[in-house]
Amino acid sequence: MAQNKKMVEAITGRDEDFAKWYTDIVKKAELVDYSNVKGCMVIRPYGYAIWENIQKDLDRRFKETGHENVYMPMFIPESLLQKEKDHVEGFAPECAWVTIGGSEKLTERLAVRPTSETLFCEHYAKIINTYRDLPKLYNQWCSVVRWEKTTRPFLRTSEFLWQEGHTMHETEEEAREETLRMLQVYTDFYKETLAIPAVVGEKTEKERFAGAQATYTIEPMMHNGVALQGGTSHYFGDGFARAFDITYQGRDNKLHYPHQTSWGVSTRMIGALIMVHSDDDGLVLPPKIAPVQVAIVPIAQHKEGVLDKASALYESLKKTFRTKLDDSDQSPGWKFAQYEMQGVPIRLELGPKDIEKNQCVLVRRDTREKLFVSLDGIEDAITELLETIHNDMYNRALENMHEKTHVATTYDEFIDLSKNNPGFIKAMWCGDSACEDKLKDATGGVKSRCIPFEEEHLADTCVCCGKPAKHMVYWGKQY
Amino acid sequence: MAQNKKMVEAITGRDEDFAKWYTDIVKKAELVDYSNVKGCMVIRPYGYAIWENIQKDLDRRFKETGHENVYMPMFIPESLLQKEKDHVEGFAPECAWVTIGGSEKLTERLAVRPTSETLFCEHYAKIINTYRDLPKLYNQWCSVVRWEKTTRPFLRTSEFLWQEGHTMHETEEEAREETLRMLQVYTDFYKETLAIPAVVGEKTEKERFAGAQATYTIEPMMHNGVALQGGTSHYFGDGFARAFDITYQGRDNKLHYPHQTSWGVSTRMIGALIMVHSDDDGLVLPPKIAPVQVAIVPIAQHKEGVLDKASALYESLKKTFRTKLDDSDQSPGWKFAQYEMQGVPIRLELGPKDIEKNQCVLVRRDTREKLFVSLDGIEDAITELLETIHNDMYNRALENMHEKTHVATTYDEFIDLSKNNPGFIKAMWCGDSACEDKLKDATGGVKSRCIPFEEEHLADTCVCCGKPAKHMVYWGKQY
Repeated sequence: MAQNKKMVEAITGRDEDFAKWYTDIVKKAELVDYSNVKGCMVIRPYGYAIWENIQKDLDRRFKETGHENVYMPMFIPESLLQKEKDHVEGFAPECAWVTIGGSEKLTERLAVRPTSETLFCEHYAKIINTYRDLPKLYNQWCSVVRWEKTTRPFLRTSEFLWQEGHTMHETEEEAREETLRMLQVYTDFYKETLAIPAVVGEKTEKERFAGAQATYTIEPMMHNGVALQGGTSHYFGDGFARAFDITYQGRDNKLHYPHQTSWGVSTRMIGALIMVHSDDDGLVLPPKIAPVQVAIVPIAQHKEGVLDKASALYESLKKTFRTKLDDSDQSPGWKFAQYEMQGVPIRLELGPKDIEKNQCVLVRRDTREKLFVSLDGIEDAITELLETIHNDMYNRALENMHEKTHVATTYDEFIDLSKNNPGFIKAMWCGDSACEDKLKDATGGVKSRCIPFEEEHLADTCVCCGKPAKHMVYWGKQY
Repeated sequence: MAQNKKMVEAITGRDEDFAKWYTDIVKKAELVDYSNVKGCMVIRPYGYAIWENIQKDLDRRFKETGHENVYMPMFIPESLLQKEKDHVEGFAPECAWVTIGGSEKLTERLAVRPTSETLFCEHYAKIINTYRDLPKLYNQWCSVVRWEKTTRPFLRTSEFLWQEGHTMHETEEEAREETLRMLQVYTDFYKETLAIPAVVGEKTEKERFAGAQATYTIEPMMHNGVALQGGTSHYFGDGFARAFDITYQGRDNKLHYPHQTSWGVSTRMIGALIMVHSDDDGLVLPPKIAPVQVAIVPIAQHKEGVLDKASALYESLKKTFRTKLDDSDQSPGWKFAQYEMQGVPIRLELGPKDIEKNQCVLVRRDTREKLFVSLDGIEDAITELLETIHNDMYNRALENMHEKTHVATTYDEFIDLSKNNPGFIKAMWCGDSACEDKLKDATGGVKSRCIPFEEEHLADTCVCCGKPAKHMVYWGKQY
């Protein structure tokens, strides 16, 4: 059978060709399909189920921190996009433009939203009047479009799914707190749900979001030593508020401009999941977002009692875990390969001998470890094992990040590391963007990732120009 | 205070000016805000919370019937849209077209999806190979764009949110079953969740979806006697499959075309909620989708013990119900008006005298009935009351629908009813679309709503032309 052949065919090795390994997984685990629309992808059921689990978890965290969901139009009139100068300069070059509606040419063209600061501001201008209306803590889940030349599923596509939070506050202090609060929500989510550690900190001025006064970022390290901008949180000051004439009557009865933030993460997190955790047999998914947590594979299922017992076990386990029973007529070997490709955290094997012994076999996807476990108290054993898997996955990713983090105190060390040891480079920096440009050019793309919250003093001078250092910066290539 | 004044200001009476009453509610209950983008709306937190509750309930029903969620690109290349002739004729005139991407003119313009049959078909052509791949039961939640000249929040907007199911089946029989199954899911949802009764049946050929062989519809009756197309389910036969060259190897080892369905409901259901249930004091929401089910309003809250008791009650009730405690310094009268405007099903008043008597006051939004209820077993009382409210709301809507359903056996009766008794007209029809055109013109817009599944024999001849009747049809004006 075609289906059968396709699944047991090996994928490209991760160390052999990382890029090809990535796209093999994306296709063979049936996460996406390419579409005929340039740079757009079809997110297939298995990929979308991962996104739904991500959404559910994050949405809970947003609501627990007081945020409400809204929905803004997907179009931005060009004049609206132009209201904030830095912002339009950053985004206009990568917009898709609607110029015809129905059969008529529009008098003003509309950008398909690349991000929605301008739309939120237009709305906030109408609904914010006094300090009693603040803070406004809004979020929206939607798709956005940024016209990309080179695309890669999940990592960089012309259309992608994301959430964008947009908040307004009475004071700068509150807005800055919100910016960092949401960065922390992302950091917790990466650790607790995706089992992904990351470096967090502030972007240099050069790498800031268009129109922001400060941009914070979470930067996980991929298995191949390339970093990924995994989520950002921005403090805008009152720049947009001034441009959009958003004012509120303060406690002092005078008019003030509110202070603004925005923050977002996207479907590229699914790309991170793949590149941090997965291996040569396919996906390895952290239990919290795996669409199937336990796959039950009956062994010798034609033998009396096996399927009955497997069904009973399924009915009982599915109350607690996202469980699948595969009683199809495929061979156990085929099924093993299938659930390995899909990254199901636990495979549960149950055959006649197991039933005799009142046990089953649990096989961990992440380590392949086999555990013989009594059917009495199996729920507790699985709960515990899922937690162990999560923690072990996190710790291995952390170890990888540490192994791929190096220190450069001289320019030559920096260049040497960038060529021979892919990963983060920790190095001192003078604060001048000219040095960022120079290092990027000299290394074929190593950029500042962020200034971490806890800087180390590695040297007194900038690794590039030798002038006095202002900050320690994490540097690295990025997706 | 501005906020205060706004809320106690009366809205337009429903019987005085239904259209103005509708937009007053939409604005004053803070469901939407108008945007500067022609025909697009901002869905505000309270409106979006209703949509989230609708989504959650429907999504569960879709998953229980075996469907999986996916995400397709938002753009459709013009050549793809043109593949199925009837379909492109139906939709091309109302598309928004992207003609510029980044800074470059596109070689082929892209429609922002008005519906996604063509995208699903393109994907299905790649992933359907044998009968083992069938059925494919996909759904997606997204926004779509149809360039509308006249717009009204929720009812008709250039962009709206919806779900669109797209399925492929081995046989015509299975596909037809699916079409009716999903119509039934919608009917159950309207009844069980929205507390809205409706007429269901098949659209006449003239009213069919572009490219469909059969279109089924659910048609609730608004309070003013105007009908609303509340959801549709289509059977496509193999027309798209042929146009897109989707084939599967059958059990007979020969190639076949699969049979297709699609079905959708949208944010216009929120419009139906307003126009079926609400009154001159604002929204009346059915408990199942109300963002707040119980609003606790402390009375004389400055008196000792009142706020403590209210808080304790809130902590206990919120485990079971979507509960809000309003301990702001607004007056109770202001709060009453506020939660009436927002359609909160139950207001719970708690004052010093109530506390003395170990009771509270429950006030129904739908009937204003006041109930004095012991605090012992209050959860059960509320559960029961919410159910009663739901059922009473449904029954009142059903009564309204019956009152506004009339029978016409002659042309003059039909014209007279259309002028003087807004609502459904049940009348016989010959099957000729010329009669549909004639009746529509003569009545200023009465159209066939559907041929119900259970037809009555009202007369032998068509109400319009007098030729032998083929069907009984529900007729009516529509939003």
